[in-house]
Amino acid sequence: MRRILALALTVGCAAAVAARLRGETPAPAIAPETRRIAESLREEGFTGTRASEWARGLVDTAGPRLSGSPGDKAAIAWGLATLKSLGFANVHAERVMAPHWQRGVETGEVTAPHPHKLFLAALGGSVGTPESGLEADVLEVGSLEELAAKKEADVRGKIVFFNKRMRRTADGAGYGETVPVRGGGASRAAKLGAVGVLIRSVGTDSNRTPHTGSLKYEEGVPKIPAAALSNPDADLLERLGREGKPLRVHFTLGCRDLGLAETANVIGDIPGRGKPEQIVLLAGHRDSWDLGEGAIDDAAGCGVVIEAARLIGALSQRPRRTIRVILVGNEENGLAGGRAYQADHEAELPRHVAALESDLGAGRPTGFSWNAGPSAEPLVREIAALLEPLGGNDVRSTGAGGADISRLVLAGVPLFTVRQDASRYFDWHHTANDTFDKIEPESLDRVTAAVAVFAYVAASVPEPFERIPAEKRVVPAF
Amino acid sequence: MRRILALALTVGCAAAVAARLRGETPAPAIAPETRRIAESLREEGFTGTRASEWARGLVDTAGPRLSGSPGDKAAIAWGLATLKSLGFANVHAERVMAPHWQRGVETGEVTAPHPHKLFLAALGGSVGTPESGLEADVLEVGSLEELAAKKEADVRGKIVFFNKRMRRTADGAGYGETVPVRGGGASRAAKLGAVGVLIRSVGTDSNRTPHTGSLKYEEGVPKIPAAALSNPDADLLERLGREGKPLRVHFTLGCRDLGLAETANVIGDIPGRGKPEQIVLLAGHRDSWDLGEGAIDDAAGCGVVIEAARLIGALSQRPRRTIRVILVGNEENGLAGGRAYQADHEAELPRHVAALESDLGAGRPTGFSWNAGPSAEPLVREIAALLEPLGGNDVRSTGAGGADISRLVLAGVPLFTVRQDASRYFDWHHTANDTFDKIEPESLDRVTAAVAVFAYVAASVPEPFERIPAEKRVVPAF
Repeated sequence: MRRILALALTVGCAAAVAARLRGETPAPAIAPETRRIAESLREEGFTGTRASEWARGLVDTAGPRLSGSPGDKAAIAWGLATLKSLGFANVHAERVMAPHWQRGVETGEVTAPHPHKLFLAALGGSVGTPESGLEADVLEVGSLEELAAKKEADVRGKIVFFNKRMRRTADGAGYGETVPVRGGGASRAAKLGAVGVLIRSVGTDSNRTPHTGSLKYEEGVPKIPAAALSNPDADLLERLGREGKPLRVHFTLGCRDLGLAETANVIGDIPGRGKPEQIVLLAGHRDSWDLGEGAIDDAAGCGVVIEAARLIGALSQRPRRTIRVILVGNEENGLAGGRAYQADHEAELPRHVAALESDLGAGRPTGFSWNAGPSAEPLVREIAALLEPLGGNDVRSTGAGGADISRLVLAGVPLFTVRQDASRYFDWHHTANDTFDKIEPESLDRVTAAVAVFAYVAASVPEPFERIPAEKRVVPAF
Repeated sequence: MRRILALALTVGCAAAVAARLRGETPAPAIAPETRRIAESLREEGFTGTRASEWARGLVDTAGPRLSGSPGDKAAIAWGLATLKSLGFANVHAERVMAPHWQRGVETGEVTAPHPHKLFLAALGGSVGTPESGLEADVLEVGSLEELAAKKEADVRGKIVFFNKRMRRTADGAGYGETVPVRGGGASRAAKLGAVGVLIRSVGTDSNRTPHTGSLKYEEGVPKIPAAALSNPDADLLERLGREGKPLRVHFTLGCRDLGLAETANVIGDIPGRGKPEQIVLLAGHRDSWDLGEGAIDDAAGCGVVIEAARLIGALSQRPRRTIRVILVGNEENGLAGGRAYQADHEAELPRHVAALESDLGAGRPTGFSWNAGPSAEPLVREIAALLEPLGGNDVRSTGAGGADISRLVLAGVPLFTVRQDASRYFDWHHTANDTFDKIEPESLDRVTAAVAVFAYVAASVPEPFERIPAEKRVVPAF
């Protein structure tokens, strides 16, 4: 009895609980005809899709596309042209004002105990150094906590080297454990009088390709320059530090804050038949960091959502709700695109029945994560079961769906994402190595099929997901 | 009978042939006491050696060390100090005049059909471009042969892009197949009127780290600038070329030929007891390309030969012949160090009973290659059998022993090398990624033990290897 009750509580849907307590199997939430079409969409994951073709188009046409860059503009034009050419309706760009930060000259050298060149990259949003650079003794710490235990006298005037290694995991959990050093290290060090910060790259590779990514300066704390060292260069500093002689580094960052730049979210719809005013939102982000070509982050996701929607649009009978694709601007350094969509579409958000973001690279699908009201679980489980043949059944009722759609939680929009194998994603993430060859077309096909199945079902079922309850409508930190 | 004869011919040693034809097992060439000590040296490969410690010392103290660079000088000082501190005799530097080539500013961009940054590196010895760079339409060819089939009118004024992929193989054979494009591509293209050359990196990785390496300009042909693109950048050019629109590239190389620089071979001996005038030469090269830290190429080999000799020097009874370690200068861009040793030691070369070079990275040993007179084979086979527990029995009677010792063939010096698993070597070779973390200490320990066993036996056996016959004394091209 306890076991049945526990199961019932997990499932959490009153009707289903009642049915199970009566010994009945609840009726499936997905109708047979919907299931049949969803299964045919699933097969596309094995026969091949055009997702990597769209990803390639974005990469090869626009290249790196940080907000305000020429590539950003090229990507907007590419997005509009591509969605139009594929027959999307309502194709348009929505203006977004985003941070405009620009990388400049970057040099780094160990000056003592032995001269060595360092491969480094400014963290996004960092202030630059003086033109002649910055030279100081290095203080190595393993974590934010270890820094906090230092006396101000030990830190003042130093370059703090955060030497925290990211753990490789299939689900990317190591990223969340390590990234706070990148986001918060500079201000924490500055509070204790540091003059600069170097971090070990938040990445799992051993290439000479540093991983950039945003930092956040705290209000009222001096802004000091901060850069990521490639992992081999962090290894070098670590080894040289162990020689027991003074360790000094000189580095130059020419990066600049240029205020705000105009960019855009690019939108296109596959209109529903019957309830076109209800929307299933599929998001990928159009912008990218500047070091690489933004292939896995996130041309891959753009390719996935465009192709998933295109496949649904090509069905002989479209689902009842509208599938909307959004190619979001400014995910990487500001989340201004996601914020703008949430603000500009506030009136429409109660009619957003689901939102899904694809932004974890091009690895094979391993499952599904969801954030909705508890009675959504039986439908989620049925969708997850539909997706399982594509490669995984790791279903988790956690997650914000993705950075760009995370603010939709404020309107209770049910949020989803396809879980992917990210064991190699953080080898290339935010580096020069994020290039098109890193996309595995077969894996991307499967992710695309998973997204198409999800979107088709979400747009077809009579009763959409229960919305996120009011008490859980909190935007997580990114 | 034919089979026995064939076997006898393969073995090639008259005494052994006679013995086998008489149905006798020939007496082993290695005495039991020598074998026992060789086996104890072999065990060091599993209990651990200090080879990677010496490799680390060279890398961390000197960093990149192309001839004429500050790192080159630091590496000479490090070599002398290290060999002295380890108790080597006759430690000294021998002057070498070597090419002095220096990399400068390097930029590259696709300018049409879509702008992209290119990651490239000048090939060693390349002339620079004008300060404003060089811009031209790109002509892609798959090989030297494909270029040769082109008409001059198709090539004139173009940048020729050699898009030949290196094959990954455990023994590194793909390198030899591909590297002629790097060495000869520039002059072949210049003869047809090309203004510049870009090659796909001769490497097996997919990192944004181009592979440098020497080119050779032909006499009387205009010298045109030549650079290697990283493999992902070569992929990009290949894809953009397929769009069918004009493909244009601009690149700038600031590299310069500075004439000759003084560098050195560093030498140290473990003197033999009994026949110290006879020498077993163990070579690694002290110089490195400038992009990385020269860890696998060839601090690893320096660590191996230093440690192998040190282990033999630490035995309670040294072998009868001298073990000489040479840390050769200027392997990478000129082979001036190897040439100087052969010229300076000409009188002594008839007393060099064997030479071995370690210059294939830090992968595990897989066998052995040899080049000596045919009657050496039984002894070679016995040594190979001794080495087999370290990981391989791929014995080949081919090879020049290594670039630095290849000229010793002129004096008939028997040449050897330990074969290694090079399946990842060409991911990092001649790139910024050649850093200390790429050395696997356990694999290097095994290579070291193999070299120590070889050197100990070569320095101990009553009858050394038959010398290379006069008709085979030809220096191969490197």
